[in-house]
Amino acid sequence: MKKLVVAVSMVCVSMGVAAQPTKYEPIKPVAPVKVENPALVELGTKLFFDPRLSRSGFISCNSCHNLATGGVDNLKTSVGDYWAQGPINSPTVLNSFGQVAQFWDGRAKTLEEQAAGPIANPLEMASTHELAVEVISSIPGYRAEFKKVFGDDKVDIKRITDAIAAFEMTLVTPNSRFDQWLKGDSKALTAEEKAGYQLFKSSGCTMCHAGEKLGGDKFMKMGLVKPYKTTNTATGVHALSGKDQDRMTFKVPMLRNVELTYPYFHDGEAQTLEEATRLMGDLQLGKRYTDKEVAQIVAFLKTLTGEQPKIAYPILPPSSNATPIFDPWAKKK
Amino acid sequence: MKKLVVAVSMVCVSMGVAAQPTKYEPIKPVAPVKVENPALVELGTKLFFDPRLSRSGFISCNSCHNLATGGVDNLKTSVGDYWAQGPINSPTVLNSFGQVAQFWDGRAKTLEEQAAGPIANPLEMASTHELAVEVISSIPGYRAEFKKVFGDDKVDIKRITDAIAAFEMTLVTPNSRFDQWLKGDSKALTAEEKAGYQLFKSSGCTMCHAGEKLGGDKFMKMGLVKPYKTTNTATGVHALSGKDQDRMTFKVPMLRNVELTYPYFHDGEAQTLEEATRLMGDLQLGKRYTDKEVAQIVAFLKTLTGEQPKIAYPILPPSSNATPIFDPWAKKK
Repeated sequence: MKKLVVAVSMVCVSMGVAAQPTKYEPIKPVAPVKVENPALVELGTKLFFDPRLSRSGFISCNSCHNLATGGVDNLKTSVGDYWAQGPINSPTVLNSFGQVAQFWDGRAKTLEEQAAGPIANPLEMASTHELAVEVISSIPGYRAEFKKVFGDDKVDIKRITDAIAAFEMTLVTPNSRFDQWLKGDSKALTAEEKAGYQLFKSSGCTMCHAGEKLGGDKFMKMGLVKPYKTTNTATGVHALSGKDQDRMTFKVPMLRNVELTYPYFHDGEAQTLEEATRLMGDLQLGKRYTDKEVAQIVAFLKTLTGEQPKIAYPILPPSSNATPIFDPWAKKK
Repeated sequence: MKKLVVAVSMVCVSMGVAAQPTKYEPIKPVAPVKVENPALVELGTKLFFDPRLSRSGFISCNSCHNLATGGVDNLKTSVGDYWAQGPINSPTVLNSFGQVAQFWDGRAKTLEEQAAGPIANPLEMASTHELAVEVISSIPGYRAEFKKVFGDDKVDIKRITDAIAAFEMTLVTPNSRFDQWLKGDSKALTAEEKAGYQLFKSSGCTMCHAGEKLGGDKFMKMGLVKPYKTTNTATGVHALSGKDQDRMTFKVPMLRNVELTYPYFHDGEAQTLEEATRLMGDLQLGKRYTDKEVAQIVAFLKTLTGEQPKIAYPILPPSSNATPIFDPWAKKK
């Protein structure tokens, strides 16, 4: 019986029908998260939403990784301190744990290391780790939470970023329609969505966009078959390695919730899924998709939107009289 | 028996002890809210948190009226479009329904009218009502919600601001320790807090800061006994009426959750409750409080922090290919 099902499935696959998934699908369902240290996650939630980690007191992690909008800001590049124009598109924090590395160029190995970056980046939150620690230390409510979580109330940047990362690890999006289909609900997808998935596989998209996250596990050259033209000056891994062969090599972005994480690519230049699909086919695979094929692939991509994390908007502990005063318009140092 | 209790209470009041409240207290407890139209409130929650109501796609109502921090941004004046410096301190949205008027100068009668202001203010969200309507109309998820709430999917600025106001009406903060004491829990306040309340009443603070909100129900001159010195150019009601007698007349701010809504006054120049208390005594009442008296009043004021609204951080419906593209750095028109 089992053999028969597999055999029938394989026939269907070869016919582009895929009535039901086989055990060989290149994409795996998102696993729901198990929270092991709720107090640490709660502290991390507060810090993630706290604008006092920025120089101005106005920008939080959530400003650019907005959990109301797929963990991104839906802008080409992000607004930073003094309305600075960020150099690159903000990637989503959703399902971000467990990638091969963090940032488009992979310059941080972990979420903890990533979280430390924007706090001190002059074009982003523009604080310093010293000031961030001074601010959080001055807030009695935070000190009490640090004591509860870490055993004593010492505040340092490692504890701050550990807490933020612990929160971010909970930001997974299980139970998308595609995952329901993967798990055996044959009615979870329409015929067009299934056709799009077949095309996604047969075209070779899954060479890069596979696994649980449909990306995030490797680096790849942007413009593999044809060069990618952009006015954005980011060169990807090349900026770290200095090697010419790494020019325009970026981490493959995840496609989970891609319906929500527009605009696309490291430069945010593709506004729509249609545009992104067409360009990826052309530049990475040397394929010219028809309008119908683009529509099918886009229909499939939209089935990857999972259940968004349920966040109780945190109430932040108030500053004390000892907390440094925030002045968004203070002269730049 | 009743008479005896009142008599004893009045003796206590005259002694500055106030073991328990009388029925004559000038402050009334905050009533919990009854949500009558949950679908309208849910729509309003989304719109309140949606940065697409701004020109840049970066600033939402919540940016300056942050529900994580007492419904304010804890800045002297607010950050607006292109990092504009706002002219006046952002008042809290908490308990804001039912005030005599909205804004420091009372220029809007209702929350609906208020909500329409910042969307189109060039120093704040810097959109236009036309653009806001175009954006929200282009989002299928919103159109479906408008249809559910209003019977058809027409989007206009009135419906947008009606929904935001309906959400804001739910933002009340009942059950503060002070309210628990008012309702008969004699142990809810410490001796110092009770002494602070007695002083607050006997000094005359309750002439302005009384009722359920401890303010928000009248306008008063800032600098009643001595003139208030500030570099802020706002002149309050005068700016609307042109009458000299209205110069420096502002709406009396509410003191509910005042522990969270720093910095204080229309210009945000008082950073601490101690500073604000001392200045109010001096400028409005001609009183020089001792350090001990200031500490007592501040201790009382901190008992006014109520239960903060529990907000499920909303998931916003994604833009469509027809949604205007946001460019925070677009040239100013």
